[in-house]
Amino acid sequence: MAKGRFLSSRRAVILLAAILAVGACSVVFGAGASNPEAAGGSGILEILLELVVILLAAKLGGDLFERLGLPPVLGELVLGIVIGNLRLIGIPVFDGFARSLTLEILAELGVIILLFQVGLESSVQEMRKVGLTAFLVALFGVIAPFVLGWGVSIWFLPEETVYVHAFVGATLCATSVGITARVLRDLNKTATREAQIILGAAVIDDIMGLIILSVVTGTISAAAHVSGGGVSLVSVTWIIGKSVLFVGGALVIGSFILPHYFRFALRLRGTGVFLSFCLLVCFGMAYISGKVGLAPIVGAFAAGLVLDKMQYQGFEERGGHNIEELISPIAVFLVPIFFVRMGTLVDLTTFGKIGILGFAGVLTLAAIVGKQACSLAIFDRVTNRLAIGLGMIPRGEVGLIFAGIGASLMLDGHAVVSPETYSAVIIMVIVTTLVTPSLLKWSLQRGERRMRQ
Amino acid sequence: MAKGRFLSSRRAVILLAAILAVGACSVVFGAGASNPEAAGGSGILEILLELVVILLAAKLGGDLFERLGLPPVLGELVLGIVIGNLRLIGIPVFDGFARSLTLEILAELGVIILLFQVGLESSVQEMRKVGLTAFLVALFGVIAPFVLGWGVSIWFLPEETVYVHAFVGATLCATSVGITARVLRDLNKTATREAQIILGAAVIDDIMGLIILSVVTGTISAAAHVSGGGVSLVSVTWIIGKSVLFVGGALVIGSFILPHYFRFALRLRGTGVFLSFCLLVCFGMAYISGKVGLAPIVGAFAAGLVLDKMQYQGFEERGGHNIEELISPIAVFLVPIFFVRMGTLVDLTTFGKIGILGFAGVLTLAAIVGKQACSLAIFDRVTNRLAIGLGMIPRGEVGLIFAGIGASLMLDGHAVVSPETYSAVIIMVIVTTLVTPSLLKWSLQRGERRMRQ
Repeated sequence: MAKGRFLSSRRAVILLAAILAVGACSVVFGAGASNPEAAGGSGILEILLELVVILLAAKLGGDLFERLGLPPVLGELVLGIVIGNLRLIGIPVFDGFARSLTLEILAELGVIILLFQVGLESSVQEMRKVGLTAFLVALFGVIAPFVLGWGVSIWFLPEETVYVHAFVGATLCATSVGITARVLRDLNKTATREAQIILGAAVIDDIMGLIILSVVTGTISAAAHVSGGGVSLVSVTWIIGKSVLFVGGALVIGSFILPHYFRFALRLRGTGVFLSFCLLVCFGMAYISGKVGLAPIVGAFAAGLVLDKMQYQGFEERGGHNIEELISPIAVFLVPIFFVRMGTLVDLTTFGKIGILGFAGVLTLAAIVGKQACSLAIFDRVTNRLAIGLGMIPRGEVGLIFAGIGASLMLDGHAVVSPETYSAVIIMVIVTTLVTPSLLKWSLQRGERRMRQ
Repeated sequence: MAKGRFLSSRRAVILLAAILAVGACSVVFGAGASNPEAAGGSGILEILLELVVILLAAKLGGDLFERLGLPPVLGELVLGIVIGNLRLIGIPVFDGFARSLTLEILAELGVIILLFQVGLESSVQEMRKVGLTAFLVALFGVIAPFVLGWGVSIWFLPEETVYVHAFVGATLCATSVGITARVLRDLNKTATREAQIILGAAVIDDIMGLIILSVVTGTISAAAHVSGGGVSLVSVTWIIGKSVLFVGGALVIGSFILPHYFRFALRLRGTGVFLSFCLLVCFGMAYISGKVGLAPIVGAFAAGLVLDKMQYQGFEERGGHNIEELISPIAVFLVPIFFVRMGTLVDLTTFGKIGILGFAGVLTLAAIVGKQACSLAIFDRVTNRLAIGLGMIPRGEVGLIFAGIGASLMLDGHAVVSPETYSAVIIMVIVTTLVTPSLLKWSLQRGERRMRQ
C-alpha cells in the first residue's frame, strides 16, 4: 500500500514535470518565435521549433501514460491538448500549430506512414485463416456503432447536416486493438481463440472503417461539386465499389507487378534504393487513392498490405533489409506530429458549453454498447463472447485518424465538423481506450473461473 | 573495346530510359495534378505526387551516375534539372516545384539531416590528430578560392552588389571529399599521409565554409534590417565570433549536458525514445543557430559533432542502437528532396544569355586553381602536394548546399542571387566534381612512379 502510494505520488510528479517542461519549452522558444523576420528563412525556424516541442511532448506524454499503464498514443494526444490550450492560462503561444500548412502536411505524411506500417503488419493469409467468424465480428462491430452514432448525433445535434451524423457514426466504427493485444499478452492469452478472432476482426474492421470513411468523405467532396446534392444511394454504392475495387485491385495487380518492380530496383546501384522503392509504392498508391476520391490513407494501407515479404526477397538476401525496420525511424519522426497536432486542435473552452459533455457521455456509451454487437457473431458456446465485445471497444489511434480526417473536411469553405463535435469525439476516443484494460481483464478472469467450475 | 562500346551504348539507353520514365511519370501524374479541387486535401496530394517524382528521379539519376563512375548526388541534381526544364520541350508541368513552400521546408529539413549526418561522421579527436597541417591546408583552400571567386564576380558582374560577390566567393570555398575518398579507396590509398590530410582538412574546411556562409547570410539579413548598411568590419568580426562561439560552446556545453540528457532519456519508456532525443538535439540546435543569426545547418552540424558515441552508451547497451543507422532512413527519404529540388531551380534558358557560359567557365577555373593553394601548406618534400590540391577540388554536395542557401537569400523582397549567377555556380559545382577523379588518379600514379625511380 505504501509502495502504491509512493508510486502514484511519483507519477503525479512526473505528470507535473512533463507538463511544466513542455510549457516552459513553449514559453522560452515561443516568445522568440513571434518575431518571424529575424534571420533568413523564418519558415524553417518555425517548423524546427514546432518539431522540437512536438517530439518532446510526444516522448514525455508517451512515457507518462506508459508508466500509468495506458496507451502512449493517448499521452501524445493529451500533451497536445495541453500545448494547444496553454493560452487558457495566459500563455498565448503556438496558436500557429493549427494554422501551419507545412505542419499539417507533415502530420498527414505521418498518418500515411502509420497506415503503411499497419498494412505491412497485416497479412492477407492471416485474415483468411480466422475466416468467417472474424468477418462477421467485424461487420456487426461496424454496423451497430455506426447506426447508434448516427442516432446519437441526430438526437444531440438536430440542426447539423447529414454529413456530421455520418462522420460521428464513422468515428464510432473504428477499432484499435493495440491496447487489447497488450492486455491479452499480459495475461498470457494471445494464443486463445478469443485473441485470434479479435486480432483478425480488427484488420477486417480497419478495411471496413476505411470504406465507410471513404463514403463519408467521398459524398462530401461530391456535394462540394454538385451544389445541393445530398447522399444518394447510387453515389454511396459507387464509392463502396471503388474502395473494394481499389484494395482488391491493388492486391491482385500488386502481386503481378511488384516482383518485376523489385527485380528492376534490385539492379539499381546506390544507397537507400530499397527503402526509396517501398516509399514510392506507399506514396504512389496514397496519391492514386486520393485521385480516385478515396482517402490517401486507404492507398497507404493497401500499399502495406501488398508489400508482401516474398516480393523483395532479393533485397533481403543482398543486404538483410527489412522494410518494417527501415520505415520505423521515419515513423518515429513523423507519426507523433499527427497525434500531438490532433491534441492541439481540441479546444478546451468548448467543454464549457452546456450539452457537450452530455453529448460526449452518450456518444461514449453508444461506442461501448455498439461494439457489444460483435458478440452476436459468435455462435458456439465455448468462446468468451463478452471478452470479444469488450476487446473491440478501444478506438485508440484509429479513432483519432478518423476524427482527424473529419476535422479537415470542408464544404462551401466551412468546416463540416464543429470544434464542439470534434472535442466530443476526442473524449469518446480517450474514454473508450481508457476503460478497456480493466473491463477486459475482469471478463477474461471471470470466464476462466467459469471454465474451472 | 567491343565491350566498352556495348557498355557505353547501354549506358545511353539507361540514361534515355531514366529521363523518359521521369518525364512520363511527370506527364501522367502532372496532368492530373493541375486540378487541385478534386478530392479532399489537395495539398497532401500535390506533395505525394512531388515526392513520387523526386524519389524516382533521385534513384534513377543516382544509379545512372554511379554506373558512369560519377557521384550519385550529381545524378539527382541533373535529373532535377531535367524535370525543372521539361517545359522547354512543351511539357509545362511541375512549375510548382519551385513555388511549393512545403517542398522547400522538406528540402531544408533534408539538408539539416544531411549536415547532422556529416557532423556525426566527423570526429573532433580525428581532427586533432591530423593537426596543424590539415588546418593550414583547409585555411589556404578557403582563403584563395574566396578571393578568386570575389574577383571573378566583380569582373563579370560589375553591376551586382557586394553580397553577390561574397556569395560567389563563399560557394568556391566548399570542399566535398566524398568523391576524393572514393578515388583514394579505389586506388587503395586511404591509409596514406595524403589521404589523412585531405580528409582532415575537409572537416575543418566544412567548419570554415559554414562560418563564411554565416558571415554572408548574416550581413545580408543585417542589411535587410538596417537599410543602406553594407558589410562593416565590426559586423563581420561579430558573426565570425558568434560562429566560433556557437560551435565551440556547443562542444563544451554539450559534453557536460548531454550525458545527463541521455541519462534522463534512458529512463523514459516507449518506442523511438533514443532517436527522438537525438532529433531533438539536431532540430533544437539548428533552431538556436538560426535564432542567433547563423544558418540552421551550422547548428545541425554542431549537433552531429557533439553527439559523441560516449554519451549514449546506455542506449547502445540496452537496445544496440546506433544513431547513424537510425538517421539513415530519414535521410534516404528527405535528402534527395533537397538535391532534386536544387536541380529544378536551374533555368536552362539562362545559358542562352551571352556571358553566362564564359562566367561559369572562368569561375570553374578559379575554383580549380584556387584550391591548389592548399599545396602551399605542405612543407615536407615527401607528401604529394599536387594530389592534395587536386583532391580538394570537388565542390559536390557541399557546394550545392551553399548555392541553395544563396539562392534563398532575399533583400528588400528581391532575390539577392540572380538565376543566371545560380546557374553558373551549379555548372562550377558539376564540372569541379566531374574532373577530379581522373586528375587525382593521374597525379597519384605519377607520384608513385617518381617514388619508385
